[in-house]
Amino acid sequence: MDLATVAGLVGAFGLILLAMGSGVPAFLDSSSALIVLGGTVGAGLIHYRFSQLLSAGGVAKNAFLYKPRSPTELIKTLVEHASRARREGILALESAAEEAEDPFLKRALQLAVDGHEVSAIEAILSTEIEQLKDRHAKGAEIFTSLAGYAPALGMIGTLVGLVMMLQSMDDPSTIGPSMAVALLTTFYGAVLANLIFNPIAGKLKSRSAEEVLYKELAMEGVLSISHGDNPRIVEQKLSSFLEPRLRELVGQEK
Amino acid sequence: MDLATVAGLVGAFGLILLAMGSGVPAFLDSSSALIVLGGTVGAGLIHYRFSQLLSAGGVAKNAFLYKPRSPTELIKTLVEHASRARREGILALESAAEEAEDPFLKRALQLAVDGHEVSAIEAILSTEIEQLKDRHAKGAEIFTSLAGYAPALGMIGTLVGLVMMLQSMDDPSTIGPSMAVALLTTFYGAVLANLIFNPIAGKLKSRSAEEVLYKELAMEGVLSISHGDNPRIVEQKLSSFLEPRLRELVGQEK
Amino acid sequence: MDLATVAGLVGAFGLILLAMGSGVPAFLDSSSALIVLGGTVGAGLIHYRFSQLLSAGGVAKNAFLYKPRSPTELIKTLVEHASRARREGILALESAAEEAEDPFLKRALQLAVDGHEVSAIEAILSTEIEQLKDRHAKGAEIFTSLAGYAPALGMIGTLVGLVMMLQSMDDPSTIGPSMAVALLTTFYGAVLANLIFNPIAGKLKSRSAEEVLYKELAMEGVLSISHGDNPRIVEQKLSSFLEPRLRELVGQEK
Amino acid sequence: MDLATVAGLVGAFGLILLAMGSGVPAFLDSSSALIVLGGTVGAGLIHYRFSQLLSAGGVAKNAFLYKPRSPTELIKTLVEHASRARREGILALESAAEEAEDPFLKRALQLAVDGHEVSAIEAILSTEIEQLKDRHAKGAEIFTSLAGYAPALGMIGTLVGLVMMLQSMDDPSTIGPSMAVALLTTFYGAVLANLIFNPIAGKLKSRSAEEVLYKELAMEGVLSISHGDNPRIVEQKLSSFLEPRLRELVGQEK
Amino acid sequence: MDLATVAGLVGAFGLILLAMGSGVPAFLDSSSALIVLGGTVGAGLIHYRFSQLLSAGGVAKNAFLYKPRSPTELIKTLVEHASRARREGILALESAAEEAEDPFLKRALQLAVDGHEVSAIEAILSTEIEQLKDRHAKGAEIFTSLAGYAPALGMIGTLVGLVMMLQSMDDPSTIGPSMAVALLTTFYGAVLANLIFNPIAGKLKSRSAEEVLYKELAMEGVLSISHGDNPRIVEQKLSSFLEPRLRELVGQEK
Repeated sequence: MDLATVAGLVGAFGLILLAMGSGVPAFLDSSSALIVLGGTVGAGLIHYRFSQLLSAGGVAKNAFLYKPRSPTELIKTLVEHASRARREGILALESAAEEAEDPFLKRALQLAVDGHEVSAIEAILSTEIEQLKDRHAKGAEIFTSLAGYAPALGMIGTLVGLVMMLQSMDDPSTIGPSMAVALLTTFYGAVLANLIFNPIAGKLKSRSAEEVLYKELAMEGVLSISHGDNPRIVEQKLSSFLEPRLRELVGQEK
Repeated sequence: MDLATVAGLVGAFGLILLAMGSGVPAFLDSSSALIVLGGTVGAGLIHYRFSQLLSAGGVAKNAFLYKPRSPTELIKTLVEHASRARREGILALESAAEEAEDPFLKRALQLAVDGHEVSAIEAILSTEIEQLKDRHAKGAEIFTSLAGYAPALGMIGTLVGLVMMLQSMDDPSTIGPSMAVALLTTFYGAVLANLIFNPIAGKLKSRSAEEVLYKELAMEGVLSISHGDNPRIVEQKLSSFLEPRLRELVGQEK
Repeated sequence: MDLATVAGLVGAFGLILLAMGSGVPAFLDSSSALIVLGGTVGAGLIHYRFSQLLSAGGVAKNAFLYKPRSPTELIKTLVEHASRARREGILALESAAEEAEDPFLKRALQLAVDGHEVSAIEAILSTEIEQLKDRHAKGAEIFTSLAGYAPALGMIGTLVGLVMMLQSMDDPSTIGPSMAVALLTTFYGAVLANLIFNPIAGKLKSRSAEEVLYKELAMEGVLSISHGDNPRIVEQKLSSFLEPRLRELVGQEK
Repeated sequence: MDLATVAGLVGAFGLILLAMGSGVPAFLDSSSALIVLGGTVGAGLIHYRFSQLLSAGGVAKNAFLYKPRSPTELIKTLVEHASRARREGILALESAAEEAEDPFLKRALQLAVDGHEVSAIEAILSTEIEQLKDRHAKGAEIFTSLAGYAPALGMIGTLVGLVMMLQSMDDPSTIGPSMAVALLTTFYGAVLANLIFNPIAGKLKSRSAEEVLYKELAMEGVLSISHGDNPRIVEQKLSSFLEPRLRELVGQEK
Repeated sequence: MDLATVAGLVGAFGLILLAMGSGVPAFLDSSSALIVLGGTVGAGLIHYRFSQLLSAGGVAKNAFLYKPRSPTELIKTLVEHASRARREGILALESAAEEAEDPFLKRALQLAVDGHEVSAIEAILSTEIEQLKDRHAKGAEIFTSLAGYAPALGMIGTLVGLVMMLQSMDDPSTIGPSMAVALLTTFYGAVLANLIFNPIAGKLKSRSAEEVLYKELAMEGVLSISHGDNPRIVEQKLSSFLEPRLRELVGQEK
């Protein structure tokens, strides 16, 4: 997990604990925690299939462990492949396909080496990217849904507490503490939604955008190579995907 | 109904009941239940036609009973059909069309065997998929609408209770219980929306995506076969729809 | 007006009245009703032109009186036209065009009989469908806007009541009733939005989808006939628009 | 300004004043008005550039003064131009271009008379329509943004008032009036958003749709004329943009 | 930073301070400020990568310092280039490419001078514009996310304060001030969201639209020149992007 995530979690929860001071125990209530956490998971289990929830967990773990790969390195590699294909023919990329680490790039190069039509290669690779986007969007959507259920369950818990409190207001001195307990579920729901589920959904979306950009670069590059473009055009096409300041990194080594 | 759904329902409602403890009777109020449930159904009856609400019920039942079919099996079948069509001609798929269990696949194969143009087959099958998506989206939308009406009716009920309470505050000891009853409709509305209607709408959307993916695979496969693609390209095209880890399952048997 | 709408209105309002019991008079306040209803209409008058609001009323009335026409009947008719056009030439549809009850179908057949190019017919008919969609969406949007203004005006009314009550709290016994009156506008706003405006907007959207589907069927059928497709293909193309269970109805009579 | 707008403003504000009765002075508080109005304008100034806010004001003024032009008249004119172009050649529209009052129609006719390719004329005119839509959408968006800031600033003002009141609750008799003043900013924010900013944004959207429809009609007509379509087809194409009941007006005079 | 932004910030915060009057110290609470600001940044750190947050800061700074360039000047320049290319051939634009200040225009002209196909130039330049839009949208989205987290953290802080207050209500005289402190976080959250984060996100969107329009003009112009269009058509095409009143500025000098 990257440092910023750890810092964010520690910082946010630390500041909340700090604000509680010596009153922390008053914020721990297992019954309230159960109704919010259990109810949110319950709503998620009705909404999604069990396997979807499990795989969402895995996807989230990957999103936090994921190390973004350098698009500039990829462009340099593709431009080199383009030069070689121009000089020695597309079959010369056979070894490049075998050595490629990224499975998508490997597949793309293999399709090009196999000599399929450019339009068939494009159909295959763009379907793969579309489906990847859909799966990523689904993963992020699961956490967005949970971020919607958590505060709702928090409110449901608070209503349960309020109704019980209002039914028996004989002893005024118990009103305050009862109400405090009733508010805890709203508090739990807000924390779950805003410091756990929503940021995870956001992380998944960012990471998906990065991976899609990487794959689009690989696809554009291989299509351009299959099409027989000259390496300079390949470089121009691919560097259009980058921020201006990163473009220099691509050109520098050449 | 799958186990996860049952577990979700039992878990969520169980935890809420647990939190109520011995106070459960205080949460049962037929007049409050009537105003929320009846009012929500009433709003739904003005919004939709009766037949639409009824069919939404049926659609929801199917969504929970639905067993997802394996896309990897479908791909294997389609690749086999492609091999056979290559060897023996497209008419050899006559028996495959007759034996196909899925009505959409059956229809697609029949159209291919009948020798229609690829573009005509595509027009027919993609219209069918589009209309299916529209009907599914409509079904999910009905539950999303009900999930919007339920809390609104809950609030309306609470306002009715509050106004009545405020009109006659002579006996302070009745204020608490009156307010408790007033809050019950808000509670019912929140539970209906977040543990029943919204999760059902979500389930319908997930299930629709799975069915659409299955049908898109069938369509792409049959179009590719009609087009005379070689089986390896058919496999490549179709496996692009799958997650990388499922792709191996497709290739293994070959 | 269909029975379900009447049942929905009577049921929802009946249950609310039931919950009020003998307290109904406390919920009637002409000044509160004026501020919400008048204010909502006022906001609508600034937002839209008078003619738009008036025509929205007419559109809504039609939506509730509208009897959906059977798409299966239309398909059967179009397939018969296709057979006849195949046997006797497109001019044989002259009488069919004259007898067609639906103005859109009449126009479409007339264009086909006049022998215009398929692309020109498609341009004309699809423009008509697009513009119809836009007008319907506009009509539904008006009610959605009113459904947004009503609760806002309700809150404005409640704030007026609260401020006045807070200014003169000398006699504690008046606080309850004053607050009850202040809450009435919020109550009226919620009822207007959730039992009147939003359901009407929803009804308009459903009805628009049905009418658009009907017109799309008519357009596809006439285009397919103009194009000289054989009747079996026309039937296949059109039945793709239907749910599987309705498709049998189309085929049965043939 | 059209009568309906005046009636809407007078009606809505009149009913609110009526509900206040003799309590109007209690609702006037310059400090509260300043924090809401000034804060909303301040947020707008950070969000937009000064020139954008100013031009939004101008755009809004135009939207209320705007008199919609008759699309049926335009269609009749275009059909006449089509007849003339058919009889005497496209150059015969030179005088029509000079006499056209609407600058967009003038420009479109001039491009046609100049003999440019249909595709070039379409590119130029559709770019103009697209950019017009974008500018209109931007103008409406400014008022939608202000409609979002106003209640937020209202809540900020109420929080300021509440905090100050809660800090010094020594004299219970001041609590009511202090709270009344605190609520005024929420009241101002709600009124600004729902009776001023949101209806203006809506008016801009309606007016934009009308102007875009008018320009689309002009574009379609001139493209059809340039393309050499016969006048009857021009009329059919253009009347597809109209509601059925308006179509008769187009045909009547012919 | 432009004057309007400064005026907006000073005005909005000045009016809030004015409303606080001598009570300003009551609104300063370091623990409350920490929980809202720190918590919002913490949520942002989980949601985004550290580098994304940092670059968002840079992007925001640029947005406020950015001086919009004149599209009318650009059009005049492009029309001159078109005239020259017509007279002396496209290679005559070599010097224009070298002297161009804007890097995008420089690149576009260089591609045209290099004699690449129009479709290749369009692919390269439109990819660059698409990616720029995506990066800008991402930047604005970061501030929109923070504008969502800030009020949520404000509510979390208020719940912490409320629960602590309700737990110990022995001394009624402390209830007011405790509640006042509890409300401060809600106040901070609302101010952060509505006077800082949302307006910044809005500024980024406006600025992005301006820059994209400028680049689209440059692309359209260079494509039109590469295509060999005559200068009058180039001017017509480009002036379609402008408001009517700006178009005269383009034509005046000619």
